Amino acid sequence: MPEADWKEVAVAKQAERASKIPKEWLIQPELMPSEETLDVQDFPHTSGLLTPEELEITESTASTVVAKIASGEWTSVQVLLATCKRAAIAQQLINCLTEIYFDKALSRAKELDEYFKKEGKVIGPLHGLPISFKDQFNLKGVDTSVGYIAWCNKPASEDSTIVHLLVKAGAVPFVKTNIPATLMMGESVNNVFGRTRNPRNRDLTTGGSSGGESALISFRGSFIGVGTDIGGSIRHPCSFTGLYGLRPSHGRVSYQKVANTFLGQEAVRSCAGPMCRSVDDIKLFMKSLAAQKPWLYDPQSVPLPWREELEVLPEKLCFGFGMGDGRVMPTPPLKRAMEMTKAALLAAGHGVIEFIPTEHIEAADIIYKMWSADGGEEFQRDTDASREPLHPQLESWLGHSANVKPMTVFETWQNQQRRATLQTKWLERWQATKELTGTGRPIDGLIMPSTPFPAIRHDGGYPHHWGALSPLLDLTTGVFPVTKVDLEKDVVPADWKPISELDEKVTKYYGNPKNHENALVGLAVIARRLEEEKVAAMMGEITKCLQAS
Amino acid sequence: MPEADWKEVAVAKQAERASKIPKEWLIQPELMPSEETLDVQDFPHTSGLLTPEELEITESTASTVVAKIASGEWTSVQVLLATCKRAAIAQQLINCLTEIYFDKALSRAKELDEYFKKEGKVIGPLHGLPISFKDQFNLKGVDTSVGYIAWCNKPASEDSTIVHLLVKAGAVPFVKTNIPATLMMGESVNNVFGRTRNPRNRDLTTGGSSGGESALISFRGSFIGVGTDIGGSIRHPCSFTGLYGLRPSHGRVSYQKVANTFLGQEAVRSCAGPMCRSVDDIKLFMKSLAAQKPWLYDPQSVPLPWREELEVLPEKLCFGFGMGDGRVMPTPPLKRAMEMTKAALLAAGHGVIEFIPTEHIEAADIIYKMWSADGGEEFQRDTDASREPLHPQLESWLGHSANVKPMTVFETWQNQQRRATLQTKWLERWQATKELTGTGRPIDGLIMPSTPFPAIRHDGGYPHHWGALSPLLDLTTGVFPVTKVDLEKDVVPADWKPISELDEKVTKYYGNPKNHENALVGLAVIARRLEEEKVAAMMGEITKCLQAS
Repeated sequence: MPEADWKEVAVAKQAERASKIPKEWLIQPELMPSEETLDVQDFPHTSGLLTPEELEITESTASTVVAKIASGEWTSVQVLLATCKRAAIAQQLINCLTEIYFDKALSRAKELDEYFKKEGKVIGPLHGLPISFKDQFNLKGVDTSVGYIAWCNKPASEDSTIVHLLVKAGAVPFVKTNIPATLMMGESVNNVFGRTRNPRNRDLTTGGSSGGESALISFRGSFIGVGTDIGGSIRHPCSFTGLYGLRPSHGRVSYQKVANTFLGQEAVRSCAGPMCRSVDDIKLFMKSLAAQKPWLYDPQSVPLPWREELEVLPEKLCFGFGMGDGRVMPTPPLKRAMEMTKAALLAAGHGVIEFIPTEHIEAADIIYKMWSADGGEEFQRDTDASREPLHPQLESWLGHSANVKPMTVFETWQNQQRRATLQTKWLERWQATKELTGTGRPIDGLIMPSTPFPAIRHDGGYPHHWGALSPLLDLTTGVFPVTKVDLEKDVVPADWKPISELDEKVTKYYGNPKNHENALVGLAVIARRLEEEKVAAMMGEITKCLQAS
Repeated sequence: MPEADWKEVAVAKQAERASKIPKEWLIQPELMPSEETLDVQDFPHTSGLLTPEELEITESTASTVVAKIASGEWTSVQVLLATCKRAAIAQQLINCLTEIYFDKALSRAKELDEYFKKEGKVIGPLHGLPISFKDQFNLKGVDTSVGYIAWCNKPASEDSTIVHLLVKAGAVPFVKTNIPATLMMGESVNNVFGRTRNPRNRDLTTGGSSGGESALISFRGSFIGVGTDIGGSIRHPCSFTGLYGLRPSHGRVSYQKVANTFLGQEAVRSCAGPMCRSVDDIKLFMKSLAAQKPWLYDPQSVPLPWREELEVLPEKLCFGFGMGDGRVMPTPPLKRAMEMTKAALLAAGHGVIEFIPTEHIEAADIIYKMWSADGGEEFQRDTDASREPLHPQLESWLGHSANVKPMTVFETWQNQQRRATLQTKWLERWQATKELTGTGRPIDGLIMPSTPFPAIRHDGGYPHHWGALSPLLDLTTGVFPVTKVDLEKDVVPADWKPISELDEKVTKYYGNPKNHENALVGLAVIARRLEEEKVAAMMGEITKCLQAS
């Protein structure tokens, strides 16, 4: 495809997207913030474009929304229209959407309102909740281009299983959100839809690959979005934007009939999970989905109902604290977030022990080999199809993959065996902390940052991150917000000394807090495999402690 | 290693094994059945070598044994000695053991008796139960040679996790059992330990690769044995010897720290499971193991307790019946077993619908590619180490693997994606039977043979079998006994017509019932993934119906 042709595809897709925003929701030139206005988070308030009621609705959590619809206080249509309006504004300010289908959503919301009126009850636990999807999930009749020019204009022939199940539970899909082409990059930019920006500082990214979701949800243009994560793609965007997120273990959230790169690569699994604004919403999503018995639709779903008994935590918890991986330390805002969290937990009577996940270094080596085991053959095929130039970071990744000699199958077996060994070693180390915690149990969770730095400037790349461990070992991992970059407190101390060359590189890359101004800062809590209920409960407890401190 | 050397290794290993049988348990020449005596099943009775009490103990089920030990009626030592004696006799008649460690077992049984005496209670649900392991499982200090000369004389440095957990539950490991080298063959013969024979007809095999177990347990030289299955290796041996067996889904029974071929191959998983003589024993094993919370030791274990509520079956069940795969039909004894089972279920008020698993043909193609994806590189390394000549069937398999061009990693991804698609298609077909069963549910299980023929003569090879579907799609599968080859009823009818060339080959291979004289005949019941409790309950119900008919 010559350059002119692929550009035409992009122009047409963007025009189509723009056409889906009703005229009355377009921001008039006189109201449009200048390019120099970096913080547009408060625009819905300051612009007067949203009514007080629309502000109230969109700033509620999903749990409040479904409760108010179920009580008859709000209608599905009312909630949907407010949400669509705010999402439309988000799109104009921070370019977070890919596919917009307000019309379909409105029909569905009307049906739900009629059902409610007629039956006097909700259709399911998510009745009327607008829900957004990262642009990997299929909705019948809508493109799933994953940011590839070559995949545009090929509407999906059926819904992803998770979409089907969430709709059955009452949710109302209304938009899909931006990603990087290939999905293998830490920010969300592609030739089809352009670049997503951070609403708190438009010079910053909202991360990737689920960066359209984190932008939209943090702007309050959606309550819950569904992201995916094979190396940090839910965790990094949530940490960068102050959201709650869950990277469940494989099989807990259906990933069937979802578009993806690395199709058929099963050594390390991408997992779908919720991104949202409260712990209750994480629980609402997981519980509502499990109630649909996904294992009767998706053979890769584990037949585990939502185990409420595992949400009941012991009175005194003990957490492992991972201040870096032994090679790289968190930069000042992340270090401060760790210290704040530690202090809050200790103040509430919980315990904390040091637990440096040095295994992350080997995990990253193993996972990288899994991602590039085919020598980049799949990426090459998908990008050759349109000859679109990829983002330099991706070109370098692809070039690198292509220059990595493809592994032999026997070598992939050996690499997988290395993982199995690491998995055992990790669990044994985890269980052995029983002797150290004082609770009679091993650590309940491991708290550590997902990345050493907060949200970064566009095109910055990540010199290092801590995304490998959870997917490689399939550990349930939650992300929760802690603080905000502080221009005074987060300066690198004068007496700072790097612990390694890479650590030096990372801290220099962080530079100073001004580079990350106004960014929110989150941390991750890691548990064992398939402990989603416990992780949700721990996120709740940590949040409670942070709020009390 | 020159021929003389590898033969020396084998001679020494066999001598060591022989030395582990106490002199008083050796069968004296005058009592030893002649080579022409094919049926040695009753030898423990007819020879007078076992006391009535020893016969009673060894012919009890595991469930009875643990109950009688727990009530103080029998001691652990008493049970162990009877079992060891019968296993020693089995070894001399049918060559089913590899490693014998009666001494270690006796120390443990004594400890357990002391514990019981002192504490007045059992140490766990398997207190005092002798248990046998296929020679892939590690016991500290004992070889795990998997029938490879090169792996002999390298005692394991630690127990397999499942061994550790079963011992914690009170079980007493006492022997390991024979397998084919490579584990990829349908009967159990290797250069280290020789060939295992069928106690009901020593001209026949007990199958493979868990054929030492099926021989020992069917001879009543063990109550429960632990086998493994990646293509039929629990199911075929159980079907050939009239045992109950369970091939659970991956993650239900720990496979950690177990010796294996295809190490690190994770596209299709070998699963460990129980082989025994009653449905209650399947439940006892699974429940006792789950109670140890294997997921706290083995990160690949799914955190599922034994769900007793799933053992409660609806009053009316409906089964799918798979008479062949659309390309090959069962031979007469298997066909008769299917018809007997169908009649018994109908008589009891259950329903039956036809369900021909034609997907098996594609499943076999996919799984075969998974097994030989490395172009036989791993096998070559392990066998080159000793230069032992392998069984012609294995040489042909290895030669074939080696001549198959190794797949590229991208091709393995495509093959895995084919599996994911088949998995979805299978579940959708299964769920769609809801419209046909009359129970309001899809079929509860699919009943079909594991192989088209009953136990075969040594070195016969399998021209076809139905082992691929369950491991490829990770379907929980149970095996149960139905009948015995009947010299009159199981003749191929004069008007028989093959449905394909392969079908013709299979029926000719079966020949006539005389070739399989005295063999027992079992069938399999297949469910969805991770439905072990339901499968166990269904095996119980089917057995009840068969007994009543």
